[in-house]
Amino acid sequence: VHIETLSLRLPEAEVVAVTDPLQEEATRIAALYDIPSVVPDYAGLLEDDRVEAVVICSPTDTHAAYIIKAAQARKQIFCEKPIDLSLEVIRNALDEVEKYGVRMMVGFNRRFDPGFKRAQRMVAAGKLGEPELLRITSRDSRPPPAGYIAGSGGMFLDMTIHDFDLARYVMGSEIIEVYARAAVLVDPEIGAQGDVDTAVITLSFASGALGVIDNSRRTCYGYDQRLEIFGSGGMVRVENCRTDTHELFNEQGTHQALPLDFFMDRYIEAYAGEMKAFVQGVTAGERLPVSGEDGLRSVAIGLAAGKSAAEHRPVEVSEILG
Amino acid sequence: VHIETLSLRLPEAEVVAVTDPLQEEATRIAALYDIPSVVPDYAGLLEDDRVEAVVICSPTDTHAAYIIKAAQARKQIFCEKPIDLSLEVIRNALDEVEKYGVRMMVGFNRRFDPGFKRAQRMVAAGKLGEPELLRITSRDSRPPPAGYIAGSGGMFLDMTIHDFDLARYVMGSEIIEVYARAAVLVDPEIGAQGDVDTAVITLSFASGALGVIDNSRRTCYGYDQRLEIFGSGGMVRVENCRTDTHELFNEQGTHQALPLDFFMDRYIEAYAGEMKAFVQGVTAGERLPVSGEDGLRSVAIGLAAGKSAAEHRPVEVSEILG
Amino acid sequence: VHIETLSLRLPEAEVVAVTDPLQEEATRIAALYDIPSVVPDYAGLLEDDRVEAVVICSPTDTHAAYIIKAAQARKQIFCEKPIDLSLEVIRNALDEVEKYGVRMMVGFNRRFDPGFKRAQRMVAAGKLGEPELLRITSRDSRPPPAGYIAGSGGMFLDMTIHDFDLARYVMGSEIIEVYARAAVLVDPEIGAQGDVDTAVITLSFASGALGVIDNSRRTCYGYDQRLEIFGSGGMVRVENCRTDTHELFNEQGTHQALPLDFFMDRYIEAYAGEMKAFVQGVTAGERLPVSGEDGLRSVAIGLAAGKSAAEHRPVEVSEILG
Amino acid sequence: VHIETLSLRLPEAEVVAVTDPLQEEATRIAALYDIPSVVPDYAGLLEDDRVEAVVICSPTDTHAAYIIKAAQARKQIFCEKPIDLSLEVIRNALDEVEKYGVRMMVGFNRRFDPGFKRAQRMVAAGKLGEPELLRITSRDSRPPPAGYIAGSGGMFLDMTIHDFDLARYVMGSEIIEVYARAAVLVDPEIGAQGDVDTAVITLSFASGALGVIDNSRRTCYGYDQRLEIFGSGGMVRVENCRTDTHELFNEQGTHQALPLDFFMDRYIEAYAGEMKAFVQGVTAGERLPVSGEDGLRSVAIGLAAGKSAAEHRPVEVSEILG
Repeated sequence: VHIETLSLRLPEAEVVAVTDPLQEEATRIAALYDIPSVVPDYAGLLEDDRVEAVVICSPTDTHAAYIIKAAQARKQIFCEKPIDLSLEVIRNALDEVEKYGVRMMVGFNRRFDPGFKRAQRMVAAGKLGEPELLRITSRDSRPPPAGYIAGSGGMFLDMTIHDFDLARYVMGSEIIEVYARAAVLVDPEIGAQGDVDTAVITLSFASGALGVIDNSRRTCYGYDQRLEIFGSGGMVRVENCRTDTHELFNEQGTHQALPLDFFMDRYIEAYAGEMKAFVQGVTAGERLPVSGEDGLRSVAIGLAAGKSAAEHRPVEVSEILG
Repeated sequence: VHIETLSLRLPEAEVVAVTDPLQEEATRIAALYDIPSVVPDYAGLLEDDRVEAVVICSPTDTHAAYIIKAAQARKQIFCEKPIDLSLEVIRNALDEVEKYGVRMMVGFNRRFDPGFKRAQRMVAAGKLGEPELLRITSRDSRPPPAGYIAGSGGMFLDMTIHDFDLARYVMGSEIIEVYARAAVLVDPEIGAQGDVDTAVITLSFASGALGVIDNSRRTCYGYDQRLEIFGSGGMVRVENCRTDTHELFNEQGTHQALPLDFFMDRYIEAYAGEMKAFVQGVTAGERLPVSGEDGLRSVAIGLAAGKSAAEHRPVEVSEILG
Repeated sequence: VHIETLSLRLPEAEVVAVTDPLQEEATRIAALYDIPSVVPDYAGLLEDDRVEAVVICSPTDTHAAYIIKAAQARKQIFCEKPIDLSLEVIRNALDEVEKYGVRMMVGFNRRFDPGFKRAQRMVAAGKLGEPELLRITSRDSRPPPAGYIAGSGGMFLDMTIHDFDLARYVMGSEIIEVYARAAVLVDPEIGAQGDVDTAVITLSFASGALGVIDNSRRTCYGYDQRLEIFGSGGMVRVENCRTDTHELFNEQGTHQALPLDFFMDRYIEAYAGEMKAFVQGVTAGERLPVSGEDGLRSVAIGLAAGKSAAEHRPVEVSEILG
Repeated sequence: VHIETLSLRLPEAEVVAVTDPLQEEATRIAALYDIPSVVPDYAGLLEDDRVEAVVICSPTDTHAAYIIKAAQARKQIFCEKPIDLSLEVIRNALDEVEKYGVRMMVGFNRRFDPGFKRAQRMVAAGKLGEPELLRITSRDSRPPPAGYIAGSGGMFLDMTIHDFDLARYVMGSEIIEVYARAAVLVDPEIGAQGDVDTAVITLSFASGALGVIDNSRRTCYGYDQRLEIFGSGGMVRVENCRTDTHELFNEQGTHQALPLDFFMDRYIEAYAGEMKAFVQGVTAGERLPVSGEDGLRSVAIGLAAGKSAAEHRPVEVSEILG
């Protein structure tokens, strides 16, 4: 999806090379989008002088190493979330980024969703007065395959991490404490692997505002991603998009289409907006909109949530950050 | 419903007497609402010096005679629509009203519906710029009993008359021409009695604006009463109320409650507002908000619509009014 | 509001006597609704043999005593919430109710709101599969006067108590633990009196489901009362009613009316339904739909929430109930 | 937009050549989408043996000639609407298409809009019972430039033609009579060129159903494209999409985003679906979903509407078709 955006929608960007452990896949993509080079490995990208910036969409456990190599090669960096599951590894990578003076952006695409962005701007512009309460609903269409859970870091670091970042972004205030109540209600197999699939997480913000996230790994009605911010001067909520806009009235009631089912459909504009922001930031030499620090914070909050659920008590984020 | 409003919601009004051809019904109502007098007939009301104003809810063919008697007795008058099915009879009654210097209000309750009233105020306040298009949807839950059709004056004078009045009210401009295309799609019995049950009626306003009403005598999903006004500076639409505000999401789609099914439920606030306006106008000695002329016009437009459907051509209202 | 329902909407009920410390108010009400007797005090009601049941709408600290006297006089009892702020006092009153074999209903009107009732029925009928998550938003239009706070028992016992009862009702499962995070964001005067005005409360149900309530004592956009239940087979949410159904489209966006601002408007049908259920239960000799035990439980949960907020930890309801 | 769909979204299609009177534009497009050949003129396309089908997006007055040449060259044809403004010219082109045994599809993209398509399927599946009333609202964001009007054939043939086709499509019944009431309310310059910019058009269907289209050449709130079908067994309506899904509540009311403003945004999925249907039909050798006859009918109805407005009377479509 990033390559399509870069190739077709952003004339100021040029995709000069692509790599993938599955060489055939890289070749197929290159042909489809008319990309000049397919290189055998990541090192090949970094050696290419035409490459100004890299977009890292590899598995999480490779992110930090790729970031460090890119920094050393003086490339600007876009990296998918989470940077890593360990704060120490993340800090080490961010230190290298700073040391070599490159810029880095983390792939929290939801910040670029038209509705969420609009909500954030309203808060920032004071249109809601003082923000006092935040509600995020974030529910996946269906649970990940059992094999995925093991390496995912658990629901808080794999899924809720998006909500933690979104919460910080829209409220414009740090999360200082979390209380997570979690359960296994969807799939016992998830529980067997030590993870959870349902949760309610209370957030305390530095501003004094409170928030709550509710998560589930499964709905029967589509991908459910909503947000509500309540303030002294107003309230904004952002709803799901439906697959079409029909409304049927019959003897049983009135009926509408379901929310979009797939995260790629729901966040198609968000992915495009994210990549556009990266390209504009890189070409303009400006600060990139989602920093490595943002990536670090969201992992710390996720770790705090996990600790809270395990120890059945509220946990301050500073307890994790040290 | 009018007596309940007058008795319980309007402390400035007092219901001093009631009459009904069914004496028992009058007695029951009087007991329920604590009304001092039950009189045997209409003349009894007019003789009562405590009676300042009458509310006429009798069958249409008695309206004109009751209006004239009330005018002669110097009572202020509220009369349900339509005043009569004949323009000549209406004109005669209005002449008497004028001659005796009493005031009169016709029962077009929809003008007092909170949504429709708000739409009218937006037009009057210029919030839509120049009004250019009007759409009214007006569909009954179920057709009237066969026996009712004969004395009803036909769908245009019985049902659409409300829409004609609403159209004049919200647009603030006279209807000068109508084109009615009608059909019998709901109940052949209605057709057998020479009436129609489905129609699309184009309206031309003196202002140059255009409008359209669509009617049906039956829905399977509740009483359907909506309106939309489109202007150079904005568009307003007024929707139905639902029986409750739940929304269910499941594998089949999302589902909400139906519109309110019964006109008494839908227009409960409109009936109260109408009676309040009558009482306030009477006690303040002010002009009443729906005039006898309004009653006359709506009948003329209804007659023009009937003629248009019968002769399959647009008909100017002036052709009917003479 | 209860007298109006009983007098006008429930022909099977008769209001035979009324009392109020403000004798003039009692007299005014009796005149308006045609009630035969005005008695000087509560004892006068209980002595009246025509009185089968009492409706207690007095201040909270009088409830228990009035309940006990009614039980001793063998009257059926409707009592507004909360029964009392002390579990011991409540238990004592309930013991008397049981001892004298009378029936009692507590005034949790929201159970009779058409939307909430429908949601409850969906859960009970299995239409949502297993209920897994509950969200209640409950925000008052404006904070109570400062003088009211002192005797109110605090926000959890005065306001959230409705939400606790609603949560138990719709989920069909007991609340076994609460975690309340509260703040003073609306009015420092509320804080000065030791109360809070904003809260997020996590609920754990015996079924394993989780829930969350968010509260505020003030909105700028009307009374905000919503609910959402998420289950394995579907999700239902119940929205606010708006003051009218218009939607305006102009250059700035699209605009609709606000939610109803006043709890009497929002819950007008709920109050009527509640009284109807009481009268039907009394006349049919059936179990009443909101029991004294329900009244006890909601107070216990409110006390647990207060303790949780004060001690900054999750609190089991059994810790309070003993 | 068609080239993007064909190049990127339809792997079974290959764009082998492109032409445009503006050679530079053709070259730019070819580079962007990696199209092998840029040919200097239309004849060049037809000579290319690799070309199985042509997509004609040229000005209306060139359509018929291009269709005929494509038919003679045995290419399958996709042609944008309207085929031509003259029934005779259209018939001549369709005769050639038939003579050479090629297939042809007309570009009525709205049939492929997810909402409209769903409505059509509901009618076809009998989910609405007998369709009785149709309402289409079709309002452009802004009027075309003055220079465009002259060659456009007038509003009915340029803009309403989409609505006529959509009406026939969703109702599954022929339009047999139209009554058009039109006005110049938006821009006097349009009137000076003999065209209209606002209209209400009554439709009579062969099935007995009635319909109405309302048109305006300008809104201040975005592109407004809605449809409603009312039947004996239900009603379906299709609404606009908004630019995002936020809803703001503040003291003034509640506020949402506007409908998508640009037809390309609104119908992005429809354009893709249309092209997909063409490619599938061509490759499978099946009947194409929008026939030349459909193209002819919509023009005939547009001509009937023009005649109706000019002569101020209902006009049967058979009067135009001969």
